[in-house]
Amino acid sequence: MASVFGTVFRISTWGESHGGGVGVVIDGCPPRLPLGEADIQPDLDRRRPGQSDIVTPRKEGDACKILSGTFRGLTLGTPISIMVPNTDARPEAYREMETHFRPSHADFTYQAKYGIRNWEGGGRSSARETIGRVAAAAVAKKILKTLFPQIEILAWVSRIHDIAAQADPATVSPAAIESNAVRCPDPAAAEAMVARIKKVRSEGNSVGGLIDAVVRGMPVGLGEPVFDRLEADLAKAMLSLPATKGFEVGSGFAGTLLTGAEHNDPFEIRGGRVHTKTNHSGGVQGGISNGEDLLFRVAFKPTATIAKEQATVTESGGESTLAARGRHDPCVLPRAVVMVEAMAALVLVDHALRQRAQDCLPR
Amino acid sequence: MASVFGTVFRISTWGESHGGGVGVVIDGCPPRLPLGEADIQPDLDRRRPGQSDIVTPRKEGDACKILSGTFRGLTLGTPISIMVPNTDARPEAYREMETHFRPSHADFTYQAKYGIRNWEGGGRSSARETIGRVAAAAVAKKILKTLFPQIEILAWVSRIHDIAAQADPATVSPAAIESNAVRCPDPAAAEAMVARIKKVRSEGNSVGGLIDAVVRGMPVGLGEPVFDRLEADLAKAMLSLPATKGFEVGSGFAGTLLTGAEHNDPFEIRGGRVHTKTNHSGGVQGGISNGEDLLFRVAFKPTATIAKEQATVTESGGESTLAARGRHDPCVLPRAVVMVEAMAALVLVDHALRQRAQDCLPR
Amino acid sequence: MASVFGTVFRISTWGESHGGGVGVVIDGCPPRLPLGEADIQPDLDRRRPGQSDIVTPRKEGDACKILSGTFRGLTLGTPISIMVPNTDARPEAYREMETHFRPSHADFTYQAKYGIRNWEGGGRSSARETIGRVAAAAVAKKILKTLFPQIEILAWVSRIHDIAAQADPATVSPAAIESNAVRCPDPAAAEAMVARIKKVRSEGNSVGGLIDAVVRGMPVGLGEPVFDRLEADLAKAMLSLPATKGFEVGSGFAGTLLTGAEHNDPFEIRGGRVHTKTNHSGGVQGGISNGEDLLFRVAFKPTATIAKEQATVTESGGESTLAARGRHDPCVLPRAVVMVEAMAALVLVDHALRQRAQDCLPR
Amino acid sequence: MASVFGTVFRISTWGESHGGGVGVVIDGCPPRLPLGEADIQPDLDRRRPGQSDIVTPRKEGDACKILSGTFRGLTLGTPISIMVPNTDARPEAYREMETHFRPSHADFTYQAKYGIRNWEGGGRSSARETIGRVAAAAVAKKILKTLFPQIEILAWVSRIHDIAAQADPATVSPAAIESNAVRCPDPAAAEAMVARIKKVRSEGNSVGGLIDAVVRGMPVGLGEPVFDRLEADLAKAMLSLPATKGFEVGSGFAGTLLTGAEHNDPFEIRGGRVHTKTNHSGGVQGGISNGEDLLFRVAFKPTATIAKEQATVTESGGESTLAARGRHDPCVLPRAVVMVEAMAALVLVDHALRQRAQDCLPR
Repeated sequence: MASVFGTVFRISTWGESHGGGVGVVIDGCPPRLPLGEADIQPDLDRRRPGQSDIVTPRKEGDACKILSGTFRGLTLGTPISIMVPNTDARPEAYREMETHFRPSHADFTYQAKYGIRNWEGGGRSSARETIGRVAAAAVAKKILKTLFPQIEILAWVSRIHDIAAQADPATVSPAAIESNAVRCPDPAAAEAMVARIKKVRSEGNSVGGLIDAVVRGMPVGLGEPVFDRLEADLAKAMLSLPATKGFEVGSGFAGTLLTGAEHNDPFEIRGGRVHTKTNHSGGVQGGISNGEDLLFRVAFKPTATIAKEQATVTESGGESTLAARGRHDPCVLPRAVVMVEAMAALVLVDHALRQRAQDCLPR
Repeated sequence: MASVFGTVFRISTWGESHGGGVGVVIDGCPPRLPLGEADIQPDLDRRRPGQSDIVTPRKEGDACKILSGTFRGLTLGTPISIMVPNTDARPEAYREMETHFRPSHADFTYQAKYGIRNWEGGGRSSARETIGRVAAAAVAKKILKTLFPQIEILAWVSRIHDIAAQADPATVSPAAIESNAVRCPDPAAAEAMVARIKKVRSEGNSVGGLIDAVVRGMPVGLGEPVFDRLEADLAKAMLSLPATKGFEVGSGFAGTLLTGAEHNDPFEIRGGRVHTKTNHSGGVQGGISNGEDLLFRVAFKPTATIAKEQATVTESGGESTLAARGRHDPCVLPRAVVMVEAMAALVLVDHALRQRAQDCLPR
Repeated sequence: MASVFGTVFRISTWGESHGGGVGVVIDGCPPRLPLGEADIQPDLDRRRPGQSDIVTPRKEGDACKILSGTFRGLTLGTPISIMVPNTDARPEAYREMETHFRPSHADFTYQAKYGIRNWEGGGRSSARETIGRVAAAAVAKKILKTLFPQIEILAWVSRIHDIAAQADPATVSPAAIESNAVRCPDPAAAEAMVARIKKVRSEGNSVGGLIDAVVRGMPVGLGEPVFDRLEADLAKAMLSLPATKGFEVGSGFAGTLLTGAEHNDPFEIRGGRVHTKTNHSGGVQGGISNGEDLLFRVAFKPTATIAKEQATVTESGGESTLAARGRHDPCVLPRAVVMVEAMAALVLVDHALRQRAQDCLPR
Repeated sequence: MASVFGTVFRISTWGESHGGGVGVVIDGCPPRLPLGEADIQPDLDRRRPGQSDIVTPRKEGDACKILSGTFRGLTLGTPISIMVPNTDARPEAYREMETHFRPSHADFTYQAKYGIRNWEGGGRSSARETIGRVAAAAVAKKILKTLFPQIEILAWVSRIHDIAAQADPATVSPAAIESNAVRCPDPAAAEAMVARIKKVRSEGNSVGGLIDAVVRGMPVGLGEPVFDRLEADLAKAMLSLPATKGFEVGSGFAGTLLTGAEHNDPFEIRGGRVHTKTNHSGGVQGGISNGEDLLFRVAFKPTATIAKEQATVTESGGESTLAARGRHDPCVLPRAVVMVEAMAALVLVDHALRQRAQDCLPR
């Protein structure tokens, strides 16, 4: 019951990296939304391997197919099943994983938990699993755009290893983000990042970093106290992505170095409505969006699967070493940008529909 | 539907800071667990106001009563209802909140979302709401102790403002944590923290900081890919606490500065079972606990309600100023330590029962 | 997790018949609904023991108290906690239940499932548990009335033992139903039913019967294919009431004796909108309400706890006999009428809010 | 969110009768269960059209494919995705449904609820949707057999129109049920039923009837008070099947004609454990299984889609007539037998896993 996300707009993802395919079933999608594969494919293409020379060269086309829930280009209100077949599996590259646990990967814990694992690939812990999320999120984004035409969800790489980028969340543009392979809107930093990624790959090593995100054009009132606060659901959504180690909203960890008088966001009237002068809150107060830009950041660790030889143990309990073969991303962040946006969209659409349900009496 | 937490061990909290009381209903508690108010009260006492000179002087006794679900000192397997009446409400201290939105508090967003709010206190966004969580967690801890006798959940203040403490998660003790009002196991740092809190309070200001947590004696195999990863549910749990701005597990944000070769935790055989040599993973890999210490950290912003005068707006849309009266914590962290432990216990017990449900076939 | 009902308007009931009390927490109630104890008490009074000479003479006042979720007479959108303390417990009447399992009661199954039970009363299986449902339903009915002013939910006793009543669902009135102790709108049948109930009680025996229900003024479009069909959720709701053995909607079991040509409800235009000429469907087609009167029926078995001596076994495994003492209803139906209405209201309000959530795009 | 069923063993079905296919995602399946398509296909074959001369002659092979969640013949504990492509769609047979609402079918209500519908077939309300349920239930049955080797879930046709069969739930066998096309274990009745079905089909008409079910070898202790009583979840499960109008458990509606003294099931010790002498309870008391045979019955209305001309209205609001073309079952019951068994298995496996989760402390 752990592959289901959302309460009203609810998705079930399925699929291993090596098997029949991966996919998602969306339950609770509003009816009459124009929807076709062409709405979904662009984000899948941004997510897929092989799109640049700094990601894994696997050649998966990741072409999606909508199997149900639409009729003549419109959603029916019934479950939407979307599937992407697996094509470029090379299980032989994983032969050693049958017996060897990759350090800091999910091999050992899956084996311990389930007493079995699909070692021909990353199984369910592979980033390939996120295809279902990205596909569902493409639908979510279309709904959000219909409900809140001003809304814009953007994520970008803000740091790779120790190379930090400069970007203003208020103005960063999709074009700037997509202008380079690393998805960093700061061209100078992007260039250094690409170089760093190529360098660590050449060394059989890997790097991590930070992804920043903003949602502009946010409606007021999304988020449900007390457990389903907007930032709580975002935190869960982000930490459910592979390789994540941290989440912060607004001022985040750095905000703990300010006093209350420095940190508080004074209210003012601007453009005829309530605004805050600053945005340390990151767009959410008391778990509910206040209409300011939603700001958050996600930390991704360096890829666990590396070509360097590492100490490990075998399934039978012996100590050994392992140097991973296979075609792995030396840095997951360029592709993870799409996943971060996707999870944000899934959280927001669910909260938008929930707010609509509860706020049903005349004001 | 947002005041319900957990899937198998499921709690519903209720109550505003000013009203009849606060409480929780626990659904799914195992039967035959010895349970009385005396099991719950100690953690409520650690959480309550007025316990030291660095927290709010409100005089709430927070005495709990079990209203259902037990019989002659044992749980029945039926819902356990626990209530704490409100006693020391002083709504007059909140008179200005009827018209003025406190900066960085939940006044504005509740009003915007619901079209109404209980302005006589913090309402549902008050830390008082966490009483239900702490009470439920006391039950959760008893279950965990029965299932995993070695388990130990500890949280402590690791930084207040810029005063950082030294503590080793492997050895930090409850006694050291409880030895001072700030709940910091490093005595020198604790002294400086207390002084800092008193200073900012005297200035009508507030501070935030960090809480670190460890779970020792962790079982292997808790956590459910893909959305309900252990760290994802912990992140949600922690970000659902008032005043939180960030969460990290294991190496967290700092881990992004390492390469994969540096960050990976090599496996070894120790004491007859699989261990990792290092613990950058923080005890969780692929969303599942690996048996190492579970390590995480939570960032708390400085308290929003301060005595200093701040710019704000009124409900009718005018600009104004506000200097909060009332009896507020200048720093929430000493009391939040108990809440962090509580949320961790609630996450762990739910995952323990879920694992038991799914892992039902013979190995 | 089994004492939670509903998905968007979600209730958690708690409490045993003998203990601190019984109650409910409502999560997801819309904000700004006028609500006070006076809105809830009337239905609790219709449900409570001691209201006439054909029900149990227990003297429980069942006075409810709203503990949270309202402010100055309006709902806040936060959880509403409602409690009714237990007052007239007489555990001594249950002394024999410590060792003897009452035939066809829940004593044996609770003991087998939980390894423990509260034998001082009916515990969680007592009809007293339904107080929380009836209280929550009073709130649900107020919401439904605001959303659909024409809606009217009515249930009545249509048969006691073999005494059947005549009543037209299209016109039956609350006044007619409440005009006698048995809640049967057919005065002649009601008189015979009262006599029968008194007779079986005098014999230490009990009877069951049927409750019919209608919802008039139904909106079109409530009910969610495929699992949460309106009739499926109603069936679950009704079978979750104590002593129920059957449920049918529209033509029900009798409809299976018709051919399709006889059973189908032809469509026609009437009063400017689509209607059916007949209503064998009972107001629901494909799991979704069609705007016709919602019609269903619930079967209640004779009360299990009777004064006559019966064969049974003891907890220690011996065969024995039992003649129940205590003050029990010789027939649950007069009071169950209120419970049937309550469960219908809870199902309908949840579906109304769910439909509002999903149907969010412009038509 | 209405196509998800179960809480711990949770399934999501998807698919319309005319579209890419139908399927199911199973979340929460225990790991290490032997599973292949060959375990699933037999029940799909029992469910599919074209298997005899009294059901629809549509030629769907309904060959299933497992797309995820297994590895070398064993379940992984991860989501199992099962798909059956649509093959024999003939949308031209449904042309008139674009404008005409079929009486007592879901056309009008889907259109009213969603503002759109897939009129090229029955869409989501088609019995074809149940393929996902039957496939998931095949997995559920394998789990149940592993946990409770004695368990046996059997359903059969007990009445068609007014032709009733004789069968003893204690001894009825799969072979007897499968010995004829109508799935009735009483050969004489079966013959008459087949004749009746052929007759009404030749008249362009249809019939309904009753399906009885028994679960033998039931474990004690399944079912969760108060809302998720075993009979409540069974009632919901059965009423979620297309064309159902009623459900009863044990003595059901007929039991309301008995007094308590007649209806109560006295306990006795038999074979070393607690049994009831009679089984009016139908194997469930207080919502929990007592180890006796679980007995229930489901009423199915006559098929709505018939060839006879009927009065109806068009989408544009005019009155008209309709004589359905297409290849429809004149009686759904022979195929519904499989669906009833499937839903029972899904309810039981979920309750078995839930009981395992909650009953985790030593007895």
